[in-house]
Amino acid sequence: MITAGIFGATGFTGYELVQILEKHPDVQIQFATSQSFSGQWLSDIYAQAPHLPLISGEEAPLDQVDVVFLCLPHAAAAETAVTALDAGCKVIDLSADFRLDEPDVYAQWYGREHPAPHLLETAVYGLTEWSRVQLPGAELVAVPGCYPTSVLLALRPLFQTGFTLSGPIIADSKSGVSGAGRKANETTHFINVTDNFSPYKIGQAHRHQPEIEQVINWWQEDAPPVIFSPHLLPVPRGILSTIYVTLSEPFDLDEIQTHYQNAYANEPFVCILPPGKLATLAHVTHTNKCVIGLTQAGNTLILTSAIDNLLKGAAGQAVQNMNVVFQIDETTGLT
Amino acid sequence: MITAGIFGATGFTGYELVQILEKHPDVQIQFATSQSFSGQWLSDIYAQAPHLPLISGEEAPLDQVDVVFLCLPHAAAAETAVTALDAGCKVIDLSADFRLDEPDVYAQWYGREHPAPHLLETAVYGLTEWSRVQLPGAELVAVPGCYPTSVLLALRPLFQTGFTLSGPIIADSKSGVSGAGRKANETTHFINVTDNFSPYKIGQAHRHQPEIEQVINWWQEDAPPVIFSPHLLPVPRGILSTIYVTLSEPFDLDEIQTHYQNAYANEPFVCILPPGKLATLAHVTHTNKCVIGLTQAGNTLILTSAIDNLLKGAAGQAVQNMNVVFQIDETTGLT
Amino acid sequence: MITAGIFGATGFTGYELVQILEKHPDVQIQFATSQSFSGQWLSDIYAQAPHLPLISGEEAPLDQVDVVFLCLPHAAAAETAVTALDAGCKVIDLSADFRLDEPDVYAQWYGREHPAPHLLETAVYGLTEWSRVQLPGAELVAVPGCYPTSVLLALRPLFQTGFTLSGPIIADSKSGVSGAGRKANETTHFINVTDNFSPYKIGQAHRHQPEIEQVINWWQEDAPPVIFSPHLLPVPRGILSTIYVTLSEPFDLDEIQTHYQNAYANEPFVCILPPGKLATLAHVTHTNKCVIGLTQAGNTLILTSAIDNLLKGAAGQAVQNMNVVFQIDETTGLT
Amino acid sequence: MITAGIFGATGFTGYELVQILEKHPDVQIQFATSQSFSGQWLSDIYAQAPHLPLISGEEAPLDQVDVVFLCLPHAAAAETAVTALDAGCKVIDLSADFRLDEPDVYAQWYGREHPAPHLLETAVYGLTEWSRVQLPGAELVAVPGCYPTSVLLALRPLFQTGFTLSGPIIADSKSGVSGAGRKANETTHFINVTDNFSPYKIGQAHRHQPEIEQVINWWQEDAPPVIFSPHLLPVPRGILSTIYVTLSEPFDLDEIQTHYQNAYANEPFVCILPPGKLATLAHVTHTNKCVIGLTQAGNTLILTSAIDNLLKGAAGQAVQNMNVVFQIDETTGLT
Repeated sequence: MITAGIFGATGFTGYELVQILEKHPDVQIQFATSQSFSGQWLSDIYAQAPHLPLISGEEAPLDQVDVVFLCLPHAAAAETAVTALDAGCKVIDLSADFRLDEPDVYAQWYGREHPAPHLLETAVYGLTEWSRVQLPGAELVAVPGCYPTSVLLALRPLFQTGFTLSGPIIADSKSGVSGAGRKANETTHFINVTDNFSPYKIGQAHRHQPEIEQVINWWQEDAPPVIFSPHLLPVPRGILSTIYVTLSEPFDLDEIQTHYQNAYANEPFVCILPPGKLATLAHVTHTNKCVIGLTQAGNTLILTSAIDNLLKGAAGQAVQNMNVVFQIDETTGLT
Repeated sequence: MITAGIFGATGFTGYELVQILEKHPDVQIQFATSQSFSGQWLSDIYAQAPHLPLISGEEAPLDQVDVVFLCLPHAAAAETAVTALDAGCKVIDLSADFRLDEPDVYAQWYGREHPAPHLLETAVYGLTEWSRVQLPGAELVAVPGCYPTSVLLALRPLFQTGFTLSGPIIADSKSGVSGAGRKANETTHFINVTDNFSPYKIGQAHRHQPEIEQVINWWQEDAPPVIFSPHLLPVPRGILSTIYVTLSEPFDLDEIQTHYQNAYANEPFVCILPPGKLATLAHVTHTNKCVIGLTQAGNTLILTSAIDNLLKGAAGQAVQNMNVVFQIDETTGLT
Repeated sequence: MITAGIFGATGFTGYELVQILEKHPDVQIQFATSQSFSGQWLSDIYAQAPHLPLISGEEAPLDQVDVVFLCLPHAAAAETAVTALDAGCKVIDLSADFRLDEPDVYAQWYGREHPAPHLLETAVYGLTEWSRVQLPGAELVAVPGCYPTSVLLALRPLFQTGFTLSGPIIADSKSGVSGAGRKANETTHFINVTDNFSPYKIGQAHRHQPEIEQVINWWQEDAPPVIFSPHLLPVPRGILSTIYVTLSEPFDLDEIQTHYQNAYANEPFVCILPPGKLATLAHVTHTNKCVIGLTQAGNTLILTSAIDNLLKGAAGQAVQNMNVVFQIDETTGLT
Repeated sequence: MITAGIFGATGFTGYELVQILEKHPDVQIQFATSQSFSGQWLSDIYAQAPHLPLISGEEAPLDQVDVVFLCLPHAAAAETAVTALDAGCKVIDLSADFRLDEPDVYAQWYGREHPAPHLLETAVYGLTEWSRVQLPGAELVAVPGCYPTSVLLALRPLFQTGFTLSGPIIADSKSGVSGAGRKANETTHFINVTDNFSPYKIGQAHRHQPEIEQVINWWQEDAPPVIFSPHLLPVPRGILSTIYVTLSEPFDLDEIQTHYQNAYANEPFVCILPPGKLATLAHVTHTNKCVIGLTQAGNTLILTSAIDNLLKGAAGQAVQNMNVVFQIDETTGLT
């Protein structure tokens, strides 16, 4: 039995993690922390939550757990990671702190020095389907951002084809409101969301853009730039990314379709749709799946890629990573 | 006083037209037709509708009206247009029948021979801001499609700049459900729409793609191809298009911003947002406005363009065209 | 031309008032206040708002206006009312401060002494259809609560019939989220509202319950108690009240239907539906109307009554009252 | 292993049943029927459905199953029940055919003679918490209607108290759109549902009213009449009933609260909320639970009762009944 602690259990991601781990046959939740609600119960916060006590992060009995999940703001996550690693725990970090491998890039996008740059080498970027070799036994896993997960899983097979790309990669992404977090503010007020649809930080202004670009550059040096345009959807959960990749020369969609199907043939959580089908949120909400459809328009390949932002885009992928780290069946607790 | 008749008054577009014309100080509605509901009242169909009798199309007293609005399916619209023009009425057609100027292209996309190809020369493409010179006194106006309106108004000033484009123009568009029409089917069932978000006919598969491409080619020969990707939003009304145009060389966003502001400085229904602001549905629903924001990502200009699909994208623009045709103030009845 | 000032213009009700008064042919807005946003423009707050400067309440030039509208929290409203009346302005108060005529009842429900009990005699309870005689020239009008408006307009004709009631009057009411105000909090977070439906303060716990009960007792001494159960709907606006009134003896629905139709025959903003029809939000949103349907179940009369909470339930009724106070056509600016 | 067949697997209820039974450790689905989609796969209809073949009802191999679930229209269900019982299968019927025990009442409300009145005696009304004694080994179970489940579970303990009631029992109920079924029509069109809220068949006009009244009369002869008012909520799933029961004399809420808690102390799927808490949809969606809150207003007890209409109101309760019929743990497959 794997013993686990959850830091930041009252946010949407933390609560989702509790729900998964409560039913995970190989995991025992030892503690759940909350700065705002310590002393209360998780069931005070969420109508359907289990009756789990909330303690402060300082009280967390790190000596009782094999692994901690960090659902904390950036910077706070890195600091807790240091403490937890020192205490001998494995760390699955759902924040952005260990996703970017250059401290300078981190400083530029997150507005502060990286709190633990010495750990950047240790951290495994946990896009499970791609990082599976590095994960078993890993000490520190950086769970990818929600948007990057939807975009990178859709692009990965293309970078194994030898095609060259022309012009920027454009990812036009749309996310449900849970991506904006549990904090009540103007952005999440029902009146501002319902009957509305809003782009935000489009182009090269959102923190997930350098994350996507970094991984693509791992896959291919001198890859074209990424344009990433997030939009807020009036739905509770789910991300759909419509991704435009223009190739340097004509291509045969059937061939690429076959390549994608082969690339993901043995993946339990990635589904390539049949030719002509497009991914929708309805394919993926409340699942750990990434569903991908392929379309052609001239020399441009259009990928539609859908995930549940709270599951495959956060808590689900975190547990998928944990399963691989601890070398148990990768799908345990996730189907 | 302009006397008007509405063919197809019970669809969403027809009903919106009734609402505008009922309050238009220079228009008198003489008749409203419906094939499915003739003999009933418009107030039987819509909870807030005026008590307007519905007659069949065959009963329409064409000799009593100066102008007819056609909110009919394609082909049926062209046939009614012939009859109405013969009777001496001006025709504002909200269907697709007179938008494409090549009968062959029409046949390819609409699956039948054009019912009245001799009228294609007569028809004015009523993107009012662009067609204003041709509209006064016009006999037949083709109101642009909803998606093309949002895309073309956003692109128009760019084609006056002398910039050359590189790679395809990509319009990633999102529309509310009223765009799918009043007919109840799987697509419009609440359960399939709410909490969901779906692409459909993306790439070069939707009938509005050749319409956009045609107009762009009027503006610039050998313009790059258009990729057009519509998506269905879980909202009742509104379209947001996020448009990616990659230029052949670096550009200065401030310069383009200024150009856009100048281009639309005197337009009552087009609003260029200040630098850094992005268009949203909340800017435009229930108005005849098109609101446009400009963003830069490297050599790519990203335009966000929002309209209300039933107003600026249909009934509003139809009335705007009518006002210009009859040479009354263009904003009458629309503010 | 009536000159007007609006206190609290950035709340949902205040903004709605601005929208009405901007188009009201007999009103000139002289100023709009906001404590949180003074120095900014209303168009900074709402995407479609006019470019109206926001000043602090202290700066308000009371000598320039004939009337002020108070869209302020309770207590603050009463204090501003005192100042404005002293300056010679008429006051239309949209807060709860002058709705209850007993200072003790106010203290009990609002948790503080009434700030201006000497004005309670002056205030006219502005349920326009019922108060029309007292309104012309009135100095101070208390606009009824949104829920009470929907309930009282539905009940009023019944209290003119001579029927006696048996058991409590039960009003099961459902309101859109704008009723909860512009402040972002847990209650108004999109994730807590969408796909959900929640009762709150049901029975005899909501401040609108004593307001309803007070008015009913004006109409009939020893009226039965009122049970009032509000619920939060996942919609932006609108209230539907389903009201159960059990009569002491059998009744003929046709007779009551006819009585209701006669009672409201000349009312521009109250609509009695034909027999068998039920009121819905779709009948009334974005209008100043109250739509009422009547149903029978044994000795129980069931009334369905719908209004737009921001219009007939607040800003619309406020302007309707203002029209009567200034003796201009009651519907001006409201259709 | 229990072998099961599902008649009508493509409706919302049938699909929900498939989802439960697919994961039920003691059940093997042998077949799933659909009249409209036979020859296709369930995954053609629902984006997340398993790849289950759909056969016509006539092809169903009744000899291979221990139990059949009927998610069919009324009358069709009774006919299939006869065939299935003859073939030796147990029948869990989710239609209305065996809920009313008087053929005359059935004929009155369903507009036709009962197709199999001889089975009415055999059928067990499967409100599991109340019928548990009769269920083990039962041949034919009538799963209660969704609305009746929410109302009856909330009322049941009251009828064990000895209190007498005064005046009608009023159940003001609100349901999500899945209750209206998978068929696309005006009622379920997104545009007619979103931003709207509608009562329908209120008073004593809905088929669930006699069902509720019948069961209450089983519990107490000469019980007062039931007024039942359904409303359509703009949410996909969930029912909240606000129920008003006026007692003949004053009561102590604490005492009734304690009685309710005791009555349901051992029930895995009924939860009595602590004093002061009200049931909401958020408590129950996607669960088989019924959550109940108690409030007092004078002599009136107000019950708020929430269920998921597709689970505890249909497929979940059906499986709960099946578990008891086959004498396996009642919660199997449902948590």
